[in-house]
Amino acid sequence: MSSTLLLKPDPKLDLVLERVIDAPRELLWTAWTTPEHVRQWFTPKPWIVTDCEIDLRPGGLFRTRMQSPDGKEVNDRHCCYLDIVPNERLVWTDALLPGYRPSGDPFITAVISLQPEGKATRYTATAIHRDEATRKNHEEMGFFDGWGTVADQLAEYVKGI
Amino acid sequence: MSSTLLLKPDPKLDLVLERVIDAPRELLWTAWTTPEHVRQWFTPKPWIVTDCEIDLRPGGLFRTRMQSPDGKEVNDRHCCYLDIVPNERLVWTDALLPGYRPSGDPFITAVISLQPEGKATRYTATAIHRDEATRKNHEEMGFFDGWGTVADQLAEYVKGI
Repeated sequence: MSSTLLLKPDPKLDLVLERVIDAPRELLWTAWTTPEHVRQWFTPKPWIVTDCEIDLRPGGLFRTRMQSPDGKEVNDRHCCYLDIVPNERLVWTDALLPGYRPSGDPFITAVISLQPEGKATRYTATAIHRDEATRKNHEEMGFFDGWGTVADQLAEYVKGI
Repeated sequence: MSSTLLLKPDPKLDLVLERVIDAPRELLWTAWTTPEHVRQWFTPKPWIVTDCEIDLRPGGLFRTRMQSPDGKEVNDRHCCYLDIVPNERLVWTDALLPGYRPSGDPFITAVISLQPEGKATRYTATAIHRDEATRKNHEEMGFFDGWGTVADQLAEYVKGI
């Protein structure tokens, strides 16, 4: 069934980053859904993405392994795609693993929305949390700074592809 | 995108109940996806279902409120549909709430599969867990007895609709 329920973000529970990026949304979609592209912009520098796996279908794996410059800190995230509308919307969660298996460490569902705005794209990244405490914690961890930096890196990167 | 990843059940992590039910799968689908039907067979008697809400789309709510005969024990489960293939497959999880919001209390993803077998239906109910301990706990809680009773109640109920 194609009709999917995505609720309007709840300011108490969710965090939303919005930008207009000077690139067509098809290019942003490609950058988001191709492992060799994702590695180039997905984590705020000087951290790097050392591995990325994408199985682009509902229930499929979205894995990103990020590490600090000295390699001592590692964040290896195994997520599950939920909703995929090419060039328009990408939804995944770390509450599930591939094949929809519940994970042991649920934190967010993420929604990337791409809407055309002239020749540019309105880029909206939403983080959906289970409760106010988790939302607050994520904000204090630096959501806007981190996801903002990533959006900047993405905007810069797609100029070259 | 229509292609969905469902992994083969893992005996260490998952529990599978299989039956052949003497009814066409369209009827079983209707019984599974209509609140007034679900109320009649979804919980092992003498427990009853007092409320059922169904928003039959990916990200939509599947809620069942079950209570003991004396009304003192209540199990009000809010789940999220993940994959819906009419007359064939229904997948939901309690790791997410409607709109794909992570829940605070993830336990299982459930898959109901309906395959025609002559005029009857091969009915397969799979419970997918995050780890071996959760699978073991679910088995000890009485998965086979409980889900088996529910399958019997379903088979009996659909004779009358």
